[in-house]
Amino acid sequence: MGRSSPGLQAAGHPASLGTSAWAWRRTHPRGGATFPGPAPALCQARSRSRSNSRLDNMAHDRPSCTLEPEHVQRLLLSSREAKKSAYCPYSHFPVGAALLTGNGLIFSGCNVENACYSLGICAERTAIHKAISEGHKDFRAIAISSDLQDDFISPCGACRQVMREFGTDWAVYMTKADGSYVVRTVQELLPASFGPEDLQKMAEQVPQPGRAWVPTRV
Amino acid sequence: MGRSSPGLQAAGHPASLGTSAWAWRRTHPRGGATFPGPAPALCQARSRSRSNSRLDNMAHDRPSCTLEPEHVQRLLLSSREAKKSAYCPYSHFPVGAALLTGNGLIFSGCNVENACYSLGICAERTAIHKAISEGHKDFRAIAISSDLQDDFISPCGACRQVMREFGTDWAVYMTKADGSYVVRTVQELLPASFGPEDLQKMAEQVPQPGRAWVPTRV
Amino acid sequence: MGRSSPGLQAAGHPASLGTSAWAWRRTHPRGGATFPGPAPALCQARSRSRSNSRLDNMAHDRPSCTLEPEHVQRLLLSSREAKKSAYCPYSHFPVGAALLTGNGLIFSGCNVENACYSLGICAERTAIHKAISEGHKDFRAIAISSDLQDDFISPCGACRQVMREFGTDWAVYMTKADGSYVVRTVQELLPASFGPEDLQKMAEQVPQPGRAWVPTRV
Amino acid sequence: MGRSSPGLQAAGHPASLGTSAWAWRRTHPRGGATFPGPAPALCQARSRSRSNSRLDNMAHDRPSCTLEPEHVQRLLLSSREAKKSAYCPYSHFPVGAALLTGNGLIFSGCNVENACYSLGICAERTAIHKAISEGHKDFRAIAISSDLQDDFISPCGACRQVMREFGTDWAVYMTKADGSYVVRTVQELLPASFGPEDLQKMAEQVPQPGRAWVPTRV
Repeated sequence: MGRSSPGLQAAGHPASLGTSAWAWRRTHPRGGATFPGPAPALCQARSRSRSNSRLDNMAHDRPSCTLEPEHVQRLLLSSREAKKSAYCPYSHFPVGAALLTGNGLIFSGCNVENACYSLGICAERTAIHKAISEGHKDFRAIAISSDLQDDFISPCGACRQVMREFGTDWAVYMTKADGSYVVRTVQELLPASFGPEDLQKMAEQVPQPGRAWVPTRV
Repeated sequence: MGRSSPGLQAAGHPASLGTSAWAWRRTHPRGGATFPGPAPALCQARSRSRSNSRLDNMAHDRPSCTLEPEHVQRLLLSSREAKKSAYCPYSHFPVGAALLTGNGLIFSGCNVENACYSLGICAERTAIHKAISEGHKDFRAIAISSDLQDDFISPCGACRQVMREFGTDWAVYMTKADGSYVVRTVQELLPASFGPEDLQKMAEQVPQPGRAWVPTRV
Repeated sequence: MGRSSPGLQAAGHPASLGTSAWAWRRTHPRGGATFPGPAPALCQARSRSRSNSRLDNMAHDRPSCTLEPEHVQRLLLSSREAKKSAYCPYSHFPVGAALLTGNGLIFSGCNVENACYSLGICAERTAIHKAISEGHKDFRAIAISSDLQDDFISPCGACRQVMREFGTDWAVYMTKADGSYVVRTVQELLPASFGPEDLQKMAEQVPQPGRAWVPTRV
Repeated sequence: MGRSSPGLQAAGHPASLGTSAWAWRRTHPRGGATFPGPAPALCQARSRSRSNSRLDNMAHDRPSCTLEPEHVQRLLLSSREAKKSAYCPYSHFPVGAALLTGNGLIFSGCNVENACYSLGICAERTAIHKAISEGHKDFRAIAISSDLQDDFISPCGACRQVMREFGTDWAVYMTKADGSYVVRTVQELLPASFGPEDLQKMAEQVPQPGRAWVPTRV
């Protein structure tokens, strides 16, 4: 990429999805790693998901596979790597997330807890805030990893709401420790959601004397 | 009211659902109030919900009507009253909530904002925290009211997660300003949710040397 | 207690500070309880505080004693009682708080945790949200209790900010399990704070085209 | 820097403080920019702070100047740059922060708001979470910038608590739009704080049957 001067950039260079598939393959040769090994194709993941009770009663059609399997694996791997930085001395529950932007960059995050539990943050939100702080607001997918062996790690309601702020039609990949996954859209995970539009409607439907404020559209 | 000795009770006496239907009727005679007027029966609400885009694509069956229509109205009214206490100088978006416990008490809440926006709290969570602080953890339903004319007010993801901490099979009544409503279960609003069980599973699936902690079951 | 008609009040009747001193005395006769026994006068508390390292380097003058010792004890006792309702299966750290309003009412709260740690709430905020939801915004003092034997329990930064939303010149009583305490003002606990005024100043100092919004003053 | 292969790095390369002072000088020649112009030395900043009422009554000695003036300016500039990415459609109050790690890296952040106000995050926390997610937990200083002309922007209580999780003896630079600043330690901004040690003490002081959990030390 020939960056000769980091200069004033106080921010990071996320990995480019397009260019680094090779690097991934090299680091994780087939058969050599527990994760991911031969890519669990989407259909595999779907069949595996049958054993996961909390996802069973979602009878919706799955979102169409918009990501190439190789890219999915790349994203999952990033979320897994990100988990290593988790600061979770209170829950002992490390989580990693990797967020794919519209232009192919990946931003990763981990949970960062606090002695005042309510001031902690989840991995998904860390990744999203990070991307926003670098100027990216267009998201295609996010992957989430934890150490749970038998369950797909699922985003909490707060993270779903933060995802939803930036669109409802993008993909959430929820993984098990073995690299298998299920995928849902933000819309599926937060149906009938409250969002920026509601603040807009409030301003339109309930005019208040002396108040001309209208939220800036995203 | 004959409360002769508040004594040491630093807490409140929520209204009892069973005993105060009369009081409600008296205060809100049929036809005399904008809210609720003739009770919008659940089926009415369902038909009305067709015009609400964000709830349209929830093709699930509705949760069975566990509350008597009169009780529903009582709950909705409480949520509407609670809205009057909203402290929302920043959003100008007052919200009220009323939470019905398993033993028929109603706890109400409103949003309480903060100059540091992220330190505000929603009406739903205020009501839930209030009930917990008075020793109640068994919830049957919650109603939510706002000033939105044309849209059913819907709980944010954070509130859904806090609801879910105390069960997935209870009802959320989302209203319009005219008193019409739609109802969903917590499970429907937060499918495939993360919850207390996951922390439990983590402790079981990933034993850690020197760590014998297992979360106390609710 | 003769509550004949809770009526429409979906809210609570907080204890009245003025009328219930007797009830307190009766329940906690001198010498009969672990808490508080002979009232630790403010000066006692001050001397005791010398052993608490984190409060040692606050060389400011203490806020003047605005509360009668008896009222202080009543408030402390309420915070201690409130602790019993704490929902803290994750931290195992129960906390109680009791908030005294300008007109002599006490609202109590406890911590309410969540499997998604960041969605928990502290006891202090529960008490404040509760009071606001009942129409009270004028606060004189808050007391905090925990099970810590050797340390005065201190509010987290988030709670300090929520306290500060409603004024900087009121008292925070931080207790040990034995009932001894230290007291500081909100201002002392959150010096040089960000607050509602800053949003106001922003609106005044940085006019934006097409934006006429000014935060409503508290 | 010749980064030929972004490879697996899903994370960023923060600017190195040591190597880019020149880049800063070049971009912001003396007199050519509104910010910062001639570096406001620490003593200057102190005298300027006299006009800021909320900082007046902090009579403590200031933290010793551990950062070189040039480095301070670099940090301030980064926080100012970061402000450009703020996502604040609801408050219209953009804030930027820049965090300096023990090994000389700068991580920047901005506020990221949400239609559900309580799910927003401040600039300071974004920067800290970002650094943690990249493996850095040792912090020397953080700078904060806003558009306020006449007031030094000050961190909210929640951000102070998150700062404090990672130490009490590091510097917080609070700026005005003209680049002048005041500096305080985390300890000064959050005196008598609750922190990780308290959870540790709780585990030690209040043994519970069937609970062997002790928080992992940071």
